Amino acid sequence: MNKKVAILGATGAVGQRFIQLLDNHPWFEITGLAASERNVGKTYKDTKKWRLDTQLPEEIGEYEILPMDPKKIDADLVFSALPSDVAGEIEANFAKEGVAVSSNASANRMKEDVPLIIPEVNRDHISLIDIQKEKRGWDGFIITNPNCSTIGLVLSLKPLTKFGIEEVRVATMQAVSGAGFDGVSSMDILDNVIPYIKGEEEKMETETLKLLGNMDKDRVKPASIKVSAGCHRIGVIDGHTESIWVSTNQKIDAKDAKNAFLMFDPQLKDLPSEPEKVIFLHERDDRPQTRLDRNIGRGMTVSVGRVRDDFDGIKYIALSHNTIRGAAGAAILNGELLAREGYI
Amino acid sequence: MNKKVAILGATGAVGQRFIQLLDNHPWFEITGLAASERNVGKTYKDTKKWRLDTQLPEEIGEYEILPMDPKKIDADLVFSALPSDVAGEIEANFAKEGVAVSSNASANRMKEDVPLIIPEVNRDHISLIDIQKEKRGWDGFIITNPNCSTIGLVLSLKPLTKFGIEEVRVATMQAVSGAGFDGVSSMDILDNVIPYIKGEEEKMETETLKLLGNMDKDRVKPASIKVSAGCHRIGVIDGHTESIWVSTNQKIDAKDAKNAFLMFDPQLKDLPSEPEKVIFLHERDDRPQTRLDRNIGRGMTVSVGRVRDDFDGIKYIALSHNTIRGAAGAAILNGELLAREGYI
Amino acid sequence: MNKKVAILGATGAVGQRFIQLLDNHPWFEITGLAASERNVGKTYKDTKKWRLDTQLPEEIGEYEILPMDPKKIDADLVFSALPSDVAGEIEANFAKEGVAVSSNASANRMKEDVPLIIPEVNRDHISLIDIQKEKRGWDGFIITNPNCSTIGLVLSLKPLTKFGIEEVRVATMQAVSGAGFDGVSSMDILDNVIPYIKGEEEKMETETLKLLGNMDKDRVKPASIKVSAGCHRIGVIDGHTESIWVSTNQKIDAKDAKNAFLMFDPQLKDLPSEPEKVIFLHERDDRPQTRLDRNIGRGMTVSVGRVRDDFDGIKYIALSHNTIRGAAGAAILNGELLAREGYI
Amino acid sequence: MNKKVAILGATGAVGQRFIQLLDNHPWFEITGLAASERNVGKTYKDTKKWRLDTQLPEEIGEYEILPMDPKKIDADLVFSALPSDVAGEIEANFAKEGVAVSSNASANRMKEDVPLIIPEVNRDHISLIDIQKEKRGWDGFIITNPNCSTIGLVLSLKPLTKFGIEEVRVATMQAVSGAGFDGVSSMDILDNVIPYIKGEEEKMETETLKLLGNMDKDRVKPASIKVSAGCHRIGVIDGHTESIWVSTNQKIDAKDAKNAFLMFDPQLKDLPSEPEKVIFLHERDDRPQTRLDRNIGRGMTVSVGRVRDDFDGIKYIALSHNTIRGAAGAAILNGELLAREGYI
Repeated sequence: MNKKVAILGATGAVGQRFIQLLDNHPWFEITGLAASERNVGKTYKDTKKWRLDTQLPEEIGEYEILPMDPKKIDADLVFSALPSDVAGEIEANFAKEGVAVSSNASANRMKEDVPLIIPEVNRDHISLIDIQKEKRGWDGFIITNPNCSTIGLVLSLKPLTKFGIEEVRVATMQAVSGAGFDGVSSMDILDNVIPYIKGEEEKMETETLKLLGNMDKDRVKPASIKVSAGCHRIGVIDGHTESIWVSTNQKIDAKDAKNAFLMFDPQLKDLPSEPEKVIFLHERDDRPQTRLDRNIGRGMTVSVGRVRDDFDGIKYIALSHNTIRGAAGAAILNGELLAREGYI
Repeated sequence: MNKKVAILGATGAVGQRFIQLLDNHPWFEITGLAASERNVGKTYKDTKKWRLDTQLPEEIGEYEILPMDPKKIDADLVFSALPSDVAGEIEANFAKEGVAVSSNASANRMKEDVPLIIPEVNRDHISLIDIQKEKRGWDGFIITNPNCSTIGLVLSLKPLTKFGIEEVRVATMQAVSGAGFDGVSSMDILDNVIPYIKGEEEKMETETLKLLGNMDKDRVKPASIKVSAGCHRIGVIDGHTESIWVSTNQKIDAKDAKNAFLMFDPQLKDLPSEPEKVIFLHERDDRPQTRLDRNIGRGMTVSVGRVRDDFDGIKYIALSHNTIRGAAGAAILNGELLAREGYI
Repeated sequence: MNKKVAILGATGAVGQRFIQLLDNHPWFEITGLAASERNVGKTYKDTKKWRLDTQLPEEIGEYEILPMDPKKIDADLVFSALPSDVAGEIEANFAKEGVAVSSNASANRMKEDVPLIIPEVNRDHISLIDIQKEKRGWDGFIITNPNCSTIGLVLSLKPLTKFGIEEVRVATMQAVSGAGFDGVSSMDILDNVIPYIKGEEEKMETETLKLLGNMDKDRVKPASIKVSAGCHRIGVIDGHTESIWVSTNQKIDAKDAKNAFLMFDPQLKDLPSEPEKVIFLHERDDRPQTRLDRNIGRGMTVSVGRVRDDFDGIKYIALSHNTIRGAAGAAILNGELLAREGYI
Repeated sequence: MNKKVAILGATGAVGQRFIQLLDNHPWFEITGLAASERNVGKTYKDTKKWRLDTQLPEEIGEYEILPMDPKKIDADLVFSALPSDVAGEIEANFAKEGVAVSSNASANRMKEDVPLIIPEVNRDHISLIDIQKEKRGWDGFIITNPNCSTIGLVLSLKPLTKFGIEEVRVATMQAVSGAGFDGVSSMDILDNVIPYIKGEEEKMETETLKLLGNMDKDRVKPASIKVSAGCHRIGVIDGHTESIWVSTNQKIDAKDAKNAFLMFDPQLKDLPSEPEKVIFLHERDDRPQTRLDRNIGRGMTVSVGRVRDDFDGIKYIALSHNTIRGAAGAAILNGELLAREGYI
């Protein structure tokens, strides 16, 4: 399996992660990097400065930035790291021209005929692709992954669904990288908490229902769960920590939940980006910790810990790497699923 | 009103706050500073280094450290900033000898005959003093204030009690100063979250019930509320931020809650440490912020913001200064209440 | 003495400091706040969010933002917190129209007929005002204060000039507030050092010579000192710490230098913003510390410590508050000097 | 080549790095972990919590902690991560019993017959081993590496020695990990700089002379260079950044220095821990940056940047990883040198 892939929005925080993660990928080869008008024609290394702690692969640094034009890009699959305000239209252009788009942008996520996928959670929703193509008359299609804060939550909820989840409350402590390179000023975050991230709570509260919903003929019937989120930004670089309360209609205690976490095996080991353990259960009281545990499974594992009985169900901590499992890595895993399932 | 006060445990993080807040206090004059054995006899400025960002009052710096011995200390009231493992016995020694003790330590808080007081919340519980003195045959007595993370929560819950609070869930983002000068290593908190603070969740879950309980003859009948806490340490210096969900047995929406916060007036303006507003309601989405708002009301005000409707009640943010409103300032306010009520 | 003052660039990080420091100023009353086109006509509180940890004075919050037009502003003195790229022209417009301008911008600092003043260092340079007015045919004039990193250095060098300073090397550890609200991204500074601040080293190396130079007829003859600066940004909010090496042509040791720091008295106590001590000498090895000492003298004092013998002179640490002593406070002190000397 | 190695002080910050770096080492196999009395007999994973962001190798986690007794440890070479106050005696005990000791502790570094080695700088000093063994009548011996802040400085000075270094001034910005897990309290470093590290400046000023000195018969004649250091602690996890001024007796400019850095090749590629480039020269103005560049060469490369002309020589920035190149990695590289040279 050898597929040509391109990245839309290649110069931003998520774009750089795509490049880092796709370097030496066994199935995918980067054939194009596209970015906004003002960077077109420059070589990649002369655009935004590289801000990851591994070196920019030399060969990639020499790529010429292409325009966001499906005709100028030769790829079986494009990964979109575009800002949401422009993603909707550009991604549609690519899909119309027959290209498969695996998008990290929020623009198309909640559209009825667009699959919102976490392979370990709801890969059967991928059948929406056929409906989408038929309905829109496109040769290509768009598939999306959830918001960075939704992914850690939903992956940890998935093994608990068998107990009949009724209510979920989640308070997040989110890393600054989630807002992009210039999204959070240092003056706003040093010695500080910002108790608000625009649109974030709504995303967690709606995307969760679609992800945990079931295919009902040609659409997804949202799960009937109540979700309430409080989203907060704190001064960590990478890694979203979430404090989660879950109540269920069947009896559940901490031991049940731990067993469910331990037994969870989505059978996806054949996908190159799938980690050894999707959920890593920590037994120490003081874990997971953001800096120490965000890179488990090369950033694709969700850490779960402090699983405790609560007056009405259980409570626990989940931690996931927001720009890997929560963004670039999520879209790449979706791309791998597309490849395995023959969609590209 | 002019009372002599002493501080037990005067060299620690909370001890230094006591000195800072009592400097130029209109009612109280510091007549003694006591600390552990190894510091006795030293002048205060030669013990632990002063780590507040105001200067150590010069005169206080020259005080000689006294032993924790009620006979060696001449005071109408002692404030205790002792670690809990030694506080129980030492505080009792003082009370036996006829001294009034206003303690920030947890050792005695939950004892049936010890008042646990926030003046704006449950000052009628002060009558436990008479029961305590009689029962124990002491001339003095012990009064306590709650844990730093409990105070912000309970002050913000108080105005909501009229709606019949049933369930409370709270996720904290707590400052490092709450653990004392050496409580949190820098290697543990830079670029990190520690999702565990020993004993903290239990304190929030039990103290809240005592504080919101009612006097029932000679004891406090705990409130019948369910409280579940998740406590997390983050890299801010001062200020505990709390993300709170409240459900009530009467209908409540965000507007009701905001009105309750705005109307809250505990009628305590005659106490010198009482701030202009006990609860400050923020209307901007991105407030309260730890660094910007922790000092409102000289650190004695609880900031409340982001009051939102929830699927089962409301949710909001509370912020309070953990070593002022949550520790030294709380004990001083209790001391002022004792003075006004004639207990000292 | 009661003067009307206005602020140009009132919405930025330094603009907010001007408002904070001028609130209740004994000599100056704010009569106008000007900002860029897009904010003109708005009320101040509806422009950029207030980001200081004291509350925005309510009355000031209601001011209407004025355009940068001398005809629309009624003031004896304007303080300029403008970005350097626009400051040159706008400040000249005000001076032409007869207004006195005390500027924190770098645009005009090094011009031959513009005084660059630290009152405690070179207030005799103020006579350049008369030369400037005559040469340019202006009714008003411009006076400037140095760059934030220069001020701490030069104030600490001043008492040492009697030993004949020959060479100065300085490594800075600068706060993020020096770059304005959005100048440093959190992703660039958490767990990081940026070893470069554009233009900063050149400013330190040239402004120092002008400040320590002597009036020679109608111009300043720069001091013949060699200055070499290395400027670094670190993750602190406020306060520039500087590690300084000084060699002199007369013999100097740490004791001499300490005496010089202790004896330094610029005789300016009649200016309202002048602190009790301009230079505070710390004797503890581990001081000055940024967070603990930046606010000494309400942010107008320079802390000096760790004065040590070196193989070729002395070395020491200087700390100053970059947006108070290093910016808004510096310009206000210059304004006070203008008022006392009858220039306004 | 297959050598048995043990670690003394295996539970601390540097001890954990040894374990991390020795995992899968091609020449060395860990056969023993020793720690202080109170941990002896425990399994490693039950001692101090593991605080690196890679997982503790499972097999190592099961090792039983041994006492610091040469008779209980079976190793060709022991690495010492002991605190200096106990290192002197314990290391001597091992050397007496015939064991080779590669120590990161400062206790023995400046002793006349103990080699202080950076392989790329002064590997000929290794001949002191024979002198040491003879003089002391030991079968084993002690070899040391320099202090974490010295290593980055001296590695970057080495290529410049051909210009005749006369004076060096260096201001450090040092990471908290250099002080061990509990060495720096979070309250002391958040939003702060501590301008003092006990003993650090003296170490930099003396070790540098020994390292750059020449073997003169049976001892090292220190280099006749003047070194002056200012050491400062800041809030970064790992990586010491140093701002360095060098003056030489031959003419030197930035271009000369850059060439020297680029051409530097110590011919040690056959040692497993030797990085591809010992010195990495950065050309961007804003590099090296601590978080982004500390891991170049798996933490064994020293980054150099901002090489500039100065009034009296040159100035530049050096960055090195303090617990890898500056501690555990340094001792391991010395161990590899011992193996190659047949000392073990």
